[in-house]
Amino acid sequence: MYKFMNDYSEGACQEIIDALISTNCVQTVGYGKDPYCACAKKRMQTILQNDHCDIHFLVGGTQTNLVAISHALRPYEAVISTEFGHIQTHETGAIEACGHKILIADSDHGKIQVESIHKIMNEHKDEHMVVPRLVFISNATELGTIYSKAELQALREACNQYGLYLYLDGARLAMGLAAHNNDILWSDLCKFFDMFYIGGTKCGALFGEALVVINENLKSNIRYSMKQKGALLAKGRLLGIQFDILFQDDLYLKLAHHANTLATKIQETFQSCGISMLEETTTNQIFPILNRKQFNQLQEYCAFQTWESKDEDTIVIRIVTSYATDVKEVEGLINFIKTNFKE
Amino acid sequence: MYKFMNDYSEGACQEIIDALISTNCVQTVGYGKDPYCACAKKRMQTILQNDHCDIHFLVGGTQTNLVAISHALRPYEAVISTEFGHIQTHETGAIEACGHKILIADSDHGKIQVESIHKIMNEHKDEHMVVPRLVFISNATELGTIYSKAELQALREACNQYGLYLYLDGARLAMGLAAHNNDILWSDLCKFFDMFYIGGTKCGALFGEALVVINENLKSNIRYSMKQKGALLAKGRLLGIQFDILFQDDLYLKLAHHANTLATKIQETFQSCGISMLEETTTNQIFPILNRKQFNQLQEYCAFQTWESKDEDTIVIRIVTSYATDVKEVEGLINFIKTNFKE
Amino acid sequence: MYKFMNDYSEGACQEIIDALISTNCVQTVGYGKDPYCACAKKRMQTILQNDHCDIHFLVGGTQTNLVAISHALRPYEAVISTEFGHIQTHETGAIEACGHKILIADSDHGKIQVESIHKIMNEHKDEHMVVPRLVFISNATELGTIYSKAELQALREACNQYGLYLYLDGARLAMGLAAHNNDILWSDLCKFFDMFYIGGTKCGALFGEALVVINENLKSNIRYSMKQKGALLAKGRLLGIQFDILFQDDLYLKLAHHANTLATKIQETFQSCGISMLEETTTNQIFPILNRKQFNQLQEYCAFQTWESKDEDTIVIRIVTSYATDVKEVEGLINFIKTNFKE
Amino acid sequence: MYKFMNDYSEGACQEIIDALISTNCVQTVGYGKDPYCACAKKRMQTILQNDHCDIHFLVGGTQTNLVAISHALRPYEAVISTEFGHIQTHETGAIEACGHKILIADSDHGKIQVESIHKIMNEHKDEHMVVPRLVFISNATELGTIYSKAELQALREACNQYGLYLYLDGARLAMGLAAHNNDILWSDLCKFFDMFYIGGTKCGALFGEALVVINENLKSNIRYSMKQKGALLAKGRLLGIQFDILFQDDLYLKLAHHANTLATKIQETFQSCGISMLEETTTNQIFPILNRKQFNQLQEYCAFQTWESKDEDTIVIRIVTSYATDVKEVEGLINFIKTNFKE
Repeated sequence: MYKFMNDYSEGACQEIIDALISTNCVQTVGYGKDPYCACAKKRMQTILQNDHCDIHFLVGGTQTNLVAISHALRPYEAVISTEFGHIQTHETGAIEACGHKILIADSDHGKIQVESIHKIMNEHKDEHMVVPRLVFISNATELGTIYSKAELQALREACNQYGLYLYLDGARLAMGLAAHNNDILWSDLCKFFDMFYIGGTKCGALFGEALVVINENLKSNIRYSMKQKGALLAKGRLLGIQFDILFQDDLYLKLAHHANTLATKIQETFQSCGISMLEETTTNQIFPILNRKQFNQLQEYCAFQTWESKDEDTIVIRIVTSYATDVKEVEGLINFIKTNFKE
Repeated sequence: MYKFMNDYSEGACQEIIDALISTNCVQTVGYGKDPYCACAKKRMQTILQNDHCDIHFLVGGTQTNLVAISHALRPYEAVISTEFGHIQTHETGAIEACGHKILIADSDHGKIQVESIHKIMNEHKDEHMVVPRLVFISNATELGTIYSKAELQALREACNQYGLYLYLDGARLAMGLAAHNNDILWSDLCKFFDMFYIGGTKCGALFGEALVVINENLKSNIRYSMKQKGALLAKGRLLGIQFDILFQDDLYLKLAHHANTLATKIQETFQSCGISMLEETTTNQIFPILNRKQFNQLQEYCAFQTWESKDEDTIVIRIVTSYATDVKEVEGLINFIKTNFKE
Repeated sequence: MYKFMNDYSEGACQEIIDALISTNCVQTVGYGKDPYCACAKKRMQTILQNDHCDIHFLVGGTQTNLVAISHALRPYEAVISTEFGHIQTHETGAIEACGHKILIADSDHGKIQVESIHKIMNEHKDEHMVVPRLVFISNATELGTIYSKAELQALREACNQYGLYLYLDGARLAMGLAAHNNDILWSDLCKFFDMFYIGGTKCGALFGEALVVINENLKSNIRYSMKQKGALLAKGRLLGIQFDILFQDDLYLKLAHHANTLATKIQETFQSCGISMLEETTTNQIFPILNRKQFNQLQEYCAFQTWESKDEDTIVIRIVTSYATDVKEVEGLINFIKTNFKE
Repeated sequence: MYKFMNDYSEGACQEIIDALISTNCVQTVGYGKDPYCACAKKRMQTILQNDHCDIHFLVGGTQTNLVAISHALRPYEAVISTEFGHIQTHETGAIEACGHKILIADSDHGKIQVESIHKIMNEHKDEHMVVPRLVFISNATELGTIYSKAELQALREACNQYGLYLYLDGARLAMGLAAHNNDILWSDLCKFFDMFYIGGTKCGALFGEALVVINENLKSNIRYSMKQKGALLAKGRLLGIQFDILFQDDLYLKLAHHANTLATKIQETFQSCGISMLEETTTNQIFPILNRKQFNQLQEYCAFQTWESKDEDTIVIRIVTSYATDVKEVEGLINFIKTNFKE
């Protein structure tokens, strides 16, 4: 049965596999100080139009979030996130395990609301409370929606007003940037964020996230934080090799475009059958709201995730495509939907 | 210039590369719950002659040590290690960052001394001091030496006496077990240790360590500890695929045997030239003591690590071989030594 | 200007001062192993009708909460609290600083709702989320309300169902138990809670909280947790002396009764003037809702805390009485309210 | 039986008891923002000849050390201490529990050796090791010895060379400064140290330590660290009242002088009987080396601590005097020694 469960069901894109084969016997120094990492960083700096940013390669998203955030904060400082933030919901309290409270801001379509940041800052005034210090967002969000440039600009201004760091979890950054309605440029990221990561795991790599550090205050000694948290890969070259490939010939965004296009087609098919969405998205996650009969039928056909049972007969599901999703399988699914769910 | 600097200079053995290629497009569930991981665990349990042990795959050694140790200990409990223990010297205080003190026991040839454990236990008697709770050893040790079965037996008895966990850092376990003078069986490991890890990174894998949990008290919820520390790989299958290969046809120990044999040849060559060793070893690390002239000459020929400058004219170096070390390069080095350092 | 700001504005009740004077020159051993602590514990066990509970004396409430909770939990375990919980709002992230996430349950009149505990338990199912493990409540609550025996019974049953610890922050336990509508006995506390603390700081002591441990699993090595967190007072006798006095002749509840009675009189006076309360309470905190003019007038007369500005003309204030509150000052306040706020 | 076991066997000096009585009913704000704390700080700044230092009052020594050190350090930074450092030996791993490794420097007569700091700094060079960042010393040391001004000067220079903080645990600072051979002035402390604490618990107070912060980088938000660690006393005035008394009329050093003088008399008596000392001290701790017979005899007469059993017949004991030690009891002890141990 084909899986539309997540975007890490397969290995890596063929270009990466090829590169790993061709470099396999080359000797390099360890821990990310090899020429492949250097080359990948250079390439990424060029695309980011920023020669001064630091780039570090880590293995996974939770690891990257906890290293970056714990590196940025003093013990009494806290993170602001939405209730959907991956650090809040699906990282087993990793941020708290590093000692930091997460304060929940209001969200709309999965996106943090600036007024809520103002409210939190006004409520945190003395030493009996934590010091909010870093705003955590994801783009694409956990609900598949994306931020506009104007929204990021407003967030940045609020952060500037209070001396807050702005951090982006970019697990699905590729899909965000490749969305047809996206207006954020690579070079904007360096203007808006103090730190962000460019996710590889969910977009073509075997594994790997590239943490980009813009703010000078956050640069020093971050490799110590990485090593201390077990996040410095011995054969660090593996990460350099992969990101070097992903950032050639626009591969990274092309892979994301593939995923987005297929998800949108599936979404449109559901909608054409009168099935509405929890959020209408333009990235690789869609959230159809099925009735019980539809849910049971679809479960017979393919694998997906149950997102939320609103009531006995109203079930939100999540369908995820990826760089590796088979076009034929999507066509099959579309036919299945049309055939079975047509009003 | 050829590198004898460490055992993580190359990618992976060809068998693993082949397996990654052939499985690349298969869809699996994530986070280590896939069939490859299940198959690898089964295979390893058979070799360990222990159906009841739990096996978890992690990416790297520091990560494995910190996950395992922090999972085992309560906040006021401490680790006993030698001064050479990797957690003490080269993990950036990762154990302390998880809240635990490391108490230093005496060592001989890099191996922890049982009497020193008795001494530490006698000194820690009340709540003004930590509770020693876990003994950390490595085999092969950081000095390339290995424990005998009798030595492990004595350690186990001391640990039983005080209710201490005995933990093995197996970064170079393969080389330890493949040493010509080793008398420890795979099945012994489950008898002597409460937890140990079987290192893949330094013996043929792209990356990966297999944490084996024997003690029932340590089994529950360890995946929560893994996830919280960022140690649950999304595409966990990558680890299962690799260990499944390593534990077929004795490949794991064969790779180690290759490394050990070459190191021993180099060691014998140095010795035949009257150069003595910091420790005479039977594994893949050797520690010749060079004079300044020899040191300078050898630096022109190949890359290695300076271990310790005893004085201006007495320099201990470390030469490391691996599964991937080229036999021709070793022959070249041997010739170089014979030619240049002959008394 | 007289202060109705909190219940820690003065030193200690006269009986405690007298006891500190009379014992001042006696030599004792340190760290709470002295005869005064032993005597106080014996006395408290008798009142609790529980010879088997462990009792430990600590200096303050935040310290007690963080020691108790961090002692009880494994790294991946979390606390369930209301949004008003002192650990959530006014302890500078101390629980998170010990590594533990706080999950917010719904509340009604400041009291945690059992259904919300069920909901949280149903949502936390795998290792990508924390393990909820301890329910934190306060009695009297932060809103001055109190739990009934039936409510505690229901909480206990829910905790039993899921293997949750139930913990009571008893900063204002005295006022809760002394409330005219309270139906909880001292002996009930040992039945319902795994751990709770009996607050001294807010009821007659210079400082001090008595942590009572009922659950056998939580007893061992808790003095190690105390010492490690800096919570083992060198001259521990000071705590024993104070609790020994407080638990003679029902002094502890008498002091609380004094505070409660005065608060209730003030509350009734506000109500007789048509001023309503955020919560109608029976303990030593009251929360009148004033208009701007009333607020300004009262600020000229006495000191109190602004609790919440609902809008420009609707301000909730908090008035707190204590064991030390001067009856004459309360009469003065009552006259002031009657004179100025009469409808 | 009279106790010479430690310097926290009694309550407080009479002047402090009197001040607590006379201020008991005064209402103040909480958490150290009261006029007594303000007055004490002013008085202490004058004596320190430093108007710019920040002073914070905490309850105990372990608490003060862990708050100060964890406030100063980033997660990957470490402390340098001697093997005798209180944080290393008798604080249940509190510094490690805050995440920081302690590196052991060589000592001589209990005092840290500057060359050893150089050695440690030279060994810590990359991100696989922690960053040494703070040097911890005690004065008087745990062995009763004291630093000279020249020694502190040399330490300060080494710290400047490497960007290390220099921190003083002043649990027995009074006794250090009151020693007849001391050449350190109050005003020197602000020149040499980045932070230090002035111990009250062991010199006349019921409890209390005054943390003095000199380095501007360490000042901001330290009250957040205090609150988060449970170290902000609700009735903070109790600390202000006590230090305000201790720093009037030179009381603090007078109390220490009393303790030192008596200890020295006892030490001289032992020496006159041919009994040698582990360290010859000039403060309130002495360390006679007894044979078994002497040890047994003395145990019948008074209470003291066994420091170390060198062998069956060579036992180092510790005798401690304090501000409260009874002159008559010391005379009795001296007579006992002369009578029983005379050669």
